[in-house]
Amino acid sequence: MIIVMSPGATKEQLQIVLEKLTKVGLKVHLSEGASRTIIGVIGDKRFISELPIEALDGVEKMVSVTVDYKLVSREFKQEDTIVNVGGVLIGGNHLAVMAGPCAVESREQLLLSAEIVKMAGAQFLRGGAYKPRTSPYAFQGLEIKGLEMLAEAREKTGLKIVTEVVDVESVPVVSAYADMLQIGSRNMQNFQLLKTVGKTDKPVLLKRGLSATLNEWLNAAEYIMSEGNYNVVLCERGIRTYEEYTRNTLDLSAVAAVKNISHLPIIVDPSHGTGRWKLVGPMARAGIAAGADGLMIEVHPNPAEALSDGKQSLTPENFNLMMQEVGKIAEVMGKTLA
Amino acid sequence: MIIVMSPGATKEQLQIVLEKLTKVGLKVHLSEGASRTIIGVIGDKRFISELPIEALDGVEKMVSVTVDYKLVSREFKQEDTIVNVGGVLIGGNHLAVMAGPCAVESREQLLLSAEIVKMAGAQFLRGGAYKPRTSPYAFQGLEIKGLEMLAEAREKTGLKIVTEVVDVESVPVVSAYADMLQIGSRNMQNFQLLKTVGKTDKPVLLKRGLSATLNEWLNAAEYIMSEGNYNVVLCERGIRTYEEYTRNTLDLSAVAAVKNISHLPIIVDPSHGTGRWKLVGPMARAGIAAGADGLMIEVHPNPAEALSDGKQSLTPENFNLMMQEVGKIAEVMGKTLA
Amino acid sequence: MIIVMSPGATKEQLQIVLEKLTKVGLKVHLSEGASRTIIGVIGDKRFISELPIEALDGVEKMVSVTVDYKLVSREFKQEDTIVNVGGVLIGGNHLAVMAGPCAVESREQLLLSAEIVKMAGAQFLRGGAYKPRTSPYAFQGLEIKGLEMLAEAREKTGLKIVTEVVDVESVPVVSAYADMLQIGSRNMQNFQLLKTVGKTDKPVLLKRGLSATLNEWLNAAEYIMSEGNYNVVLCERGIRTYEEYTRNTLDLSAVAAVKNISHLPIIVDPSHGTGRWKLVGPMARAGIAAGADGLMIEVHPNPAEALSDGKQSLTPENFNLMMQEVGKIAEVMGKTLA
Amino acid sequence: MIIVMSPGATKEQLQIVLEKLTKVGLKVHLSEGASRTIIGVIGDKRFISELPIEALDGVEKMVSVTVDYKLVSREFKQEDTIVNVGGVLIGGNHLAVMAGPCAVESREQLLLSAEIVKMAGAQFLRGGAYKPRTSPYAFQGLEIKGLEMLAEAREKTGLKIVTEVVDVESVPVVSAYADMLQIGSRNMQNFQLLKTVGKTDKPVLLKRGLSATLNEWLNAAEYIMSEGNYNVVLCERGIRTYEEYTRNTLDLSAVAAVKNISHLPIIVDPSHGTGRWKLVGPMARAGIAAGADGLMIEVHPNPAEALSDGKQSLTPENFNLMMQEVGKIAEVMGKTLA
Repeated sequence: MIIVMSPGATKEQLQIVLEKLTKVGLKVHLSEGASRTIIGVIGDKRFISELPIEALDGVEKMVSVTVDYKLVSREFKQEDTIVNVGGVLIGGNHLAVMAGPCAVESREQLLLSAEIVKMAGAQFLRGGAYKPRTSPYAFQGLEIKGLEMLAEAREKTGLKIVTEVVDVESVPVVSAYADMLQIGSRNMQNFQLLKTVGKTDKPVLLKRGLSATLNEWLNAAEYIMSEGNYNVVLCERGIRTYEEYTRNTLDLSAVAAVKNISHLPIIVDPSHGTGRWKLVGPMARAGIAAGADGLMIEVHPNPAEALSDGKQSLTPENFNLMMQEVGKIAEVMGKTLA
Repeated sequence: MIIVMSPGATKEQLQIVLEKLTKVGLKVHLSEGASRTIIGVIGDKRFISELPIEALDGVEKMVSVTVDYKLVSREFKQEDTIVNVGGVLIGGNHLAVMAGPCAVESREQLLLSAEIVKMAGAQFLRGGAYKPRTSPYAFQGLEIKGLEMLAEAREKTGLKIVTEVVDVESVPVVSAYADMLQIGSRNMQNFQLLKTVGKTDKPVLLKRGLSATLNEWLNAAEYIMSEGNYNVVLCERGIRTYEEYTRNTLDLSAVAAVKNISHLPIIVDPSHGTGRWKLVGPMARAGIAAGADGLMIEVHPNPAEALSDGKQSLTPENFNLMMQEVGKIAEVMGKTLA
Repeated sequence: MIIVMSPGATKEQLQIVLEKLTKVGLKVHLSEGASRTIIGVIGDKRFISELPIEALDGVEKMVSVTVDYKLVSREFKQEDTIVNVGGVLIGGNHLAVMAGPCAVESREQLLLSAEIVKMAGAQFLRGGAYKPRTSPYAFQGLEIKGLEMLAEAREKTGLKIVTEVVDVESVPVVSAYADMLQIGSRNMQNFQLLKTVGKTDKPVLLKRGLSATLNEWLNAAEYIMSEGNYNVVLCERGIRTYEEYTRNTLDLSAVAAVKNISHLPIIVDPSHGTGRWKLVGPMARAGIAAGADGLMIEVHPNPAEALSDGKQSLTPENFNLMMQEVGKIAEVMGKTLA
Repeated sequence: MIIVMSPGATKEQLQIVLEKLTKVGLKVHLSEGASRTIIGVIGDKRFISELPIEALDGVEKMVSVTVDYKLVSREFKQEDTIVNVGGVLIGGNHLAVMAGPCAVESREQLLLSAEIVKMAGAQFLRGGAYKPRTSPYAFQGLEIKGLEMLAEAREKTGLKIVTEVVDVESVPVVSAYADMLQIGSRNMQNFQLLKTVGKTDKPVLLKRGLSATLNEWLNAAEYIMSEGNYNVVLCERGIRTYEEYTRNTLDLSAVAAVKNISHLPIIVDPSHGTGRWKLVGPMARAGIAAGADGLMIEVHPNPAEALSDGKQSLTPENFNLMMQEVGKIAEVMGKTLA
């Protein structure tokens, strides 16, 4: 932590700051310049973050030079984490593809989707049984019936099931059916929910919040890991910007950045990330080329009949085509579906 | 709802779209232009929002011309809603000021804060007993002990208590102590929490999400109201933008906009909105001048000792000064603290 | 400037960084912590900004603790600058109101607008003779004919004329007619244009760029001042964010911030800032309450006939109403139209 | 164009709107719903854009369903444009790589850079002779001496030269030396400059503005093309968002989007787009996988000695590595350096 004194700060003001720091056991180093003094602070960051240094007279600003998270960082663990979801691996050289409809709508729709997804080579079936919706009047999902359909689709195809938990209450029931629990964007900082899934033994797919910084996202993963559940996979799904052509702005540089600063696997969701099915294929290829460990793709047997997000869903034909193109990029990147 | 066909759409494609719409009972009107056809759709918006029209061949885009929310809108209720919190009114000509420390830290700090706040003329004491924090390792609040201290401060001063509920579990206990429940920014789309407070009889202060649109924010209020709790007060607290000088960008135009499209009261939080105590006074004045029904302000008996957000807290002297300045603006606006 | 070494940096890497700094005459102070070393650097910022320190091995990041601009800063000049535009003062206790149509459309429209503006108490007539437009096919202004009309309106009313210069070529001709030169948002970083108006003796109104930070905006003002023209007035006109309800997000905290860090006057443009005439009045009041030195308002004798931006223009009646409301807020703030 | 009347609009208000539209020759179609009436408008968009419909009483909003640009659109020209820069092709199956230092610093640095770039297989040498800089006190480029060095580098290596024109004045001199003129982000809406390069016969590289929408960017290209110069290549270089880890947020979905809506070639600049050399390689690969026609990369013989942007420059070794990786992705995409 660095403290920058303002140009007009007095010696007394400096002294008060220094005393406050040393009183809690922090070490300080002064750099006295022509126009201002800078204090380098060494010690446990938690101590200083609880001191309201910036409210002291004569202090211009405080600059953090370290991060809050530990367990998610590359410094904590050098090698890539590989998450095992019922035998299917995510991370390292293992490419994971999760596909299926946005929402579970009916038994027929889901079983048909599962077969399409399976035949194209994906290992996971996605589909929302509980749906967080902006309006209280919109379709909120089939709930437990949807979970039962997902379980049936798993039995028939062997696909692993990834589905969203929207609140603390539904964690036990979703855990009873799913192979992997998804935390949606709106819940990325629902800390009680993060801690609850952190206490389960299910792998967690953590989507990035709509306007979350990398730091906030990695701290959200830290909430899960700090409860003992180390099987966390991140999912970049687009951030909110001024651009209106796409539903969100898919931030693929976050994939490359996460690879540098964390050991956790990261996948990309180009369906929500762009909101336009024509952009899904190109951005799926780009995501893998940027280093992602997998994809989450909306596929619907008949997008024109979908109850939600039909606009961004691929048809079976287009999903097959995408899988072939992605396969070639994955090969260049040394990753394989397995 | 308006559907715009693409320039090359065929008659058959148009026919399929029309059939899909009319099959669910919607009425359509065609506008055939030189380069493209436009379909005006009339009927219950929920029907069309569940049809994946944009996934149909020949459809370029779908444009919504109405909003989802009802109970929060001016069309539903013309006159301003006035929320009664244990005898203190918010809305109409009644100006409400909520002030106090970011977090409840100790009995002494809180009781002293309460007296300062009371003497300056505010009617509400704010203070977090449960704190949502980005890092799992940061101070998370005194919890029930904090609630007890808030209740004691109320007994001594008569101030109403507004404090945050961070999850569904804590709603009963916080309701037992607080006069008004606060939903924080990170929970603005925690729909289970919104529905839960919607079932209580406590007035709710709903903060705007970090990157929430007006539409999403008003829909979040709709979630609460659709459960039967009509006592909702909105709170603008800054949105996330590229500007780094301020912690957030306080969007005061949202105050004026809400006054046009909704009947609910709205207050402003310039402390979180700017993150800098020097900007709190000017933005408090500006908020009231824009038409806000009140303020939420961080005040700390000694900001330099605060456990969180000291940088943005006012000293007792500055809070007094702010109250005087705001009082003059409120007078011009025809509003009074009462 | 502060340099943060990465946790694994070697002594040799540190040594190379130190040598590079001291070679150009900078002084350094080391803070060696448990996990990393921090270097405080003292000396002329320009020297260090030209050293590519962050590209050196072992360097994690470089943090700037000072700003680039000088002439615009409060540190350079403590007292408020008051800009004199042909006898009308802007800044200090002097409130300036600039009003008129977005574009000069015809002699009749402009002269009528000028009378309305004058009678309501404004001192400046605004109106674009040269219009920067997103599409090459949109109306681009009446150019020199528009300037002549502006000059005629000045003769008839005594109002001062403020109008935009869109490129270097038009600076001489616009200067021959206008009392104050406006630099539009899209040109805020057109450095050649900034330098050119910096060499004239005309006061300059510098609008904030669509997504400019405070630092970039103040540096743009520094470009003008560094050429010798100290008569610069800033104009906040909204920044680009994700919110779509308003055309831009009017950042009034920038007004309060500029008052802290600069001595230059600053005015607010709620017409472009919101894009909706119903929000203009509330945000004009809010701007003055935040500490602004004036307003720029679009007024049109008949907004429904305007060639551009009719949606955000006030009618004469609404402008009068706004002036009365603003007048009361200005009185509280100790400012007067004069 | 679609006009949405407000729920309470009267028949008289509707009548006034209709008259205004039909008076200028536009055709209208009414859709009368339960709560509001919608007007579909057919005819030349320019006529309606000059009518201030939204300022009329009873009008809620106006929704544009078409775009302003023509020459840049896929509707205007179906097949991909291939731009020929002195024999090197950009677009179609032709991959272009432009590389070199951010700024021309010295003859030695530039010639060395040129050889590195040439040997790694790039066809263009980039390097700024004129540099637009936020601060007036920062290094502004070697100007004409820099151009001479670029020309010498071309003679020695055969590389094509792409360099920035920062204002109208420098267009002739830069055109005398360069093979391709670059318009930088800050000048994307410097309309006079766009028109000036539109009158030259030099191919133009048009960078996206810092916060430009796709629509604004394509309209900027339309400015150039409407003057007769059809040799325009777009360059995505990152947009401004709230995320601070990267210098900008590289928006690769814009690449895929441009491929759908325009026939112009588009390249990607991951150096400015990320601001971190470690992310340049992954984002270069991702850009090509997304469908880009080329790359612009900062390479410096010794980034640690660079006068600007050293932090984001690749070393010769890393550039070579990147070229090999990109080559494999390009092969999958059916593109070749030639």
